[in-house]
Parts: sequence; C-alpha cells; structure tokens
Amino acid sequence: MTDFQKQLEQYMLVIDEKLQYYIDSIEEKSIVSEAMQYSLMNSGKRIRPVLALAFCDMLGGDIQKALPFACAVEMIHTYSLIHDDLPCMDDDDLRRGKPSCHKQFGEAYALLAGDALLNLAFEIMFGRFEQIDAPLAMECGRILSSYAGIDGMIGGQTIDLESEEKQISLELLKKLQALKTGKLLTAPCKIGVLAAGGSKEDLTLAEQFGMDIGLQFQIVDDILDVTSTAEVLGKPIGSDAQNSKSTYVSLLGLEQSAQMAEQLKEKSLQQLAQYGDKAAFLKALVLELSRRKK
Amino acid sequence: MTDFQKQLEQYMLVIDEKLQYYIDSIEEKSIVSEAMQYSLMNSGKRIRPVLALAFCDMLGGDIQKALPFACAVEMIHTYSLIHDDLPCMDDDDLRRGKPSCHKQFGEAYALLAGDALLNLAFEIMFGRFEQIDAPLAMECGRILSSYAGIDGMIGGQTIDLESEEKQISLELLKKLQALKTGKLLTAPCKIGVLAAGGSKEDLTLAEQFGMDIGLQFQIVDDILDVTSTAEVLGKPIGSDAQNSKSTYVSLLGLEQSAQMAEQLKEKSLQQLAQYGDKAAFLKALVLELSRRKK
Repeated sequence: MTDFQKQLEQYMLVIDEKLQYYIDSIEEKSIVSEAMQYSLMNSGKRIRPVLALAFCDMLGGDIQKALPFACAVEMIHTYSLIHDDLPCMDDDDLRRGKPSCHKQFGEAYALLAGDALLNLAFEIMFGRFEQIDAPLAMECGRILSSYAGIDGMIGGQTIDLESEEKQISLELLKKLQALKTGKLLTAPCKIGVLAAGGSKEDLTLAEQFGMDIGLQFQIVDDILDVTSTAEVLGKPIGSDAQNSKSTYVSLLGLEQSAQMAEQLKEKSLQQLAQYGDKAAFLKALVLELSRRKK
Repeated sequence: MTDFQKQLEQYMLVIDEKLQYYIDSIEEKSIVSEAMQYSLMNSGKRIRPVLALAFCDMLGGDIQKALPFACAVEMIHTYSLIHDDLPCMDDDDLRRGKPSCHKQFGEAYALLAGDALLNLAFEIMFGRFEQIDAPLAMECGRILSSYAGIDGMIGGQTIDLESEEKQISLELLKKLQALKTGKLLTAPCKIGVLAAGGSKEDLTLAEQFGMDIGLQFQIVDDILDVTSTAEVLGKPIGSDAQNSKSTYVSLLGLEQSAQMAEQLKEKSLQQLAQYGDKAAFLKALVLELSRRKK
C-alpha cells in the first residue's frame, strides 16, 4: 500500500466514524433515520470531506477542528444525490450498485431523508452535537450554505433541469458544472484552510484548486462515458449521448477534452508545489483523480 | 381597526418586506427562484415570524434583531408545505386557494424550490445577506435547526407518514403534533426572547407558550374540520374522517376537545399575565386563534 493509500484509508476511517456518530445521535429512530443511514453510509468515496481534512493537515491544523464541517459537506452531498435520484428528477434506480434511496424506502421517506440530511448538516454546524468554535462555524457555515444553495449547487441543478434535451453552449456547460459540482468541492477545501487558520492566500488557492479539480473530474467523467466499458464503469456507457446531453466531449471532441483535463491536472499540481512535501497527499489525489478508470 | 389588528398589520408589513429583500438578493434568477417567490409570498398568515417579533417587542427588544431569524422560520415553514404538497406526500393541488407549487411549476422545480428555501434560511442565519450578531445567530440557529430536523418537524412528518390509515393513540397523536407543528411554533417564541436578551425564565415560558398554542391550534383545526362548512373553511370538511385520520375529535369527542382548547387558551393567557400590558398583543393573538372560524 502506498503512503497515499494509507493516508486515504485513515482519513476515510475518521470520517466514517464521525458520520456514524452523528447518525447515532438522532433521538427519533424511524424509517427516515434508517434511510439516512442507508444513503450516507453507502461506501461513498468521501472525496469532499477528505479534501477538507487534507487541506487542514497540509497547513498544520488539527483535523478534528475541520471534521464536523467535513461531515456536514458529505451530508449535503448525500441529500443532493437522494433528491436527484427521485422519479421527478433523474429517476435513477441504482446508486453505487445498490437500490437508490426511494427504491429501498419509497419516495416519501426518501424525500424526508434528503431534507433531514440537509437539515442535519446545519444542526452540526450550529453545535447541536458538540462544543463548536463559533467564529469558525459562522465562517464555514456561510461558505457552505451559500455554495450549497440557490446561488450554488441548487442553482446548478436548476440549469441542468432547464437544459434537458437541449444543446447548450460551452459557456453555459461550464457554469452549470461549476455550480452543480464545483462549489461543493470548493467548500471543503476552504473549510480545511479556515480550520487550520490559513492565510488569505491559502484561501484563494483553495478556492481555485476546488474549482479546477471539479472541472477536471467532470471532463474525465464525460470522457469515460465514451471510452470506457459498462463492465469497468459499473453503469451503462454512452448514456450522455442517448440523453442528448451536452458534455465536454460532445462540445469539444475527445482529444481537446483530454488536453483540457491534462492542463487542469498540471495546473493543480503547480499550485500545490509551494507547499512542498506537505502537499504530497493532495498531489497524489490529483493524479489519482486524473488516472481513474471509473 | 383594533390596536391588535394595527399591530399585526405592521408586523406583517415588516416581515413581508424583509422576506422580499432576501428573495431579491438571489443572484441566479430561474424557474426555481420564481417558485420560491410564488410560495413564500403567497399571503400566508405569518404566525411564526409574528410570534418572534411579538416576544421580542414584549421584552423591550429591537425587532430588527429578531427579524432575520423570524424570516428564516417562515422559509422553513414554507419549504415544509411545498414538500408536503408533493404527489409522493399529501398530493395537494391547492395551497391557500392557489395551485400548489408543483402544480404551478412541476414537481422537479417544486422539489428544488423547497430545498432552496430550507437552505436559504440557513444562509440568512450565517449572515450571508447582512452583518449578523454571531452569538445570537449560533443560539437561534441551534434551536431552529434542531426543531426543524429529524428530532423536530421532520420527525413529526415521519410519524405522520407511518400513521397513515391507522388508528393511533392519544399519546402518539400528541407527540406527532408537538413535533410536526409545535416545534416550529416554539422556535420563533424562543428566538424573540433571545433577540431581546430575555431571561432564562422568559425562555422557559416561551417554550411552554409555543407548545400550548401549537396544541390549541391543532385542536381547533380538528374541531373545524367537523363543525364548519366548506364555504367558510375554503377547503372540504370531513377530510380527516374520510382519510381515517386520528384527530383530537375522533379520539376525545367534540365536547372534550373543545374543553381542552379552552383550557389551553386560559393557560396561555395566565402565563402572559406577568408581563401586564406589554403582553396585550400576544393575549389578543391567543384569543384570535381560539375564536377563528377557518
């Protein structure tokens, strides 16, 4: 196992334990709390909370300070997946190889489980479950709530809905992606910096880094949808073309998309260079994301 | 116009102006922001934010300090109505005499409008739109988020779902109602006290007062569903019996229910007595709620 893999496993362990702690803290056990558990603890990659801990670590902070906010980001991510999978949205029956939340528990309970996870993220940040550093909570809460809301992720979901079955411009695709996935990857990077007491420059870098890897991630997704196989990907390929969805590949072609992903990777690595060895984990994460096959 | 009516109109004006300010502050105008505007500004009675301002006023506080949190409560109330009206929940086509949000904008946009309103409530409390008093925001945010979540309102919605088409005990009905509607009436009372810098005793009273008028409100609702006419009520009567829903009337009978509502009214008035003339508005509000015909 490489140092990167060891560190990643360590982070994921810490994150999963804390997420489970919050779920266990729910007083009213019900089908909804079961559905929350099911979707939240469904072996996700935990990229967002890992980014928060890694940024905090890189700047010499205590990851325990970043952890509640990192978990809040993951809950918001999970709620958005539950609601996105609902019949009135993408109508997806599968999520990470298992029945999606509404397939398992029914639509009404899935709707409430999503609502409850979004709400729980804020209960955490307002310190319902532990003593919380108030100035840090106010800063992280302001970032996360605005990046998740109508001018952030929900704004991106809205453009996505409005663009269904339509050809859209590269400019609008970039905006859609930046809001829908970029913002919620950027928020944990900034949270990690704030928890470590980083500088304004660190914060600016974290913002750019989050947007860049979000874009890189999306382009690689679009490429894999064309070049991979269903076996490797674990879901049907060619689904974007079938849904007449505008993607980086459909708008720029395969070669130019691959170039763009490569450039973004190089840019992210260069940005991290100033942190030297302390950025080893984040550099390896960038390489991992660019090399992924699914 | 009575002093009560004048004061109520004044409060509602202040609340509606502030709610509109937040909606206008959304940067990404879209069908979703339009749906948020539609449901939020749909001439609601504003009971929850009025309670926050009235408690703040009674204790000599500045209502401007309570106002952002009062608006946050109203947004959470509105999101819960939008999601409750969805086909997978109560499947209601009408809300306050107009098409419900999903009837007007479609299910997907209504889902996102609900999500966005819940999120916006927290953006407000974390000070996205104005300078906000951090210690007050942390206290109000902790109360409101936990009262709105899985151990509060959503917990009540869950019991409601689980109890559909079932006879339930009086005890469970009380718990359901306390969570589903009581918590979100109690939160603004406590917020008003906190914004005015009230004492621990004021806070305890606000908690009890909120639960009591929530219960009183529900019992009167159940009574009207049996004794009123569709013309006066603006919606079909007898719907609870038709849906085999357990209510205070079905469990206790009409007479005992009316007695219980009367006792709660008297209790609320007695509690307010210690504040003398300063409680005039809240006393009138309690009487108004008990006398209402719809």
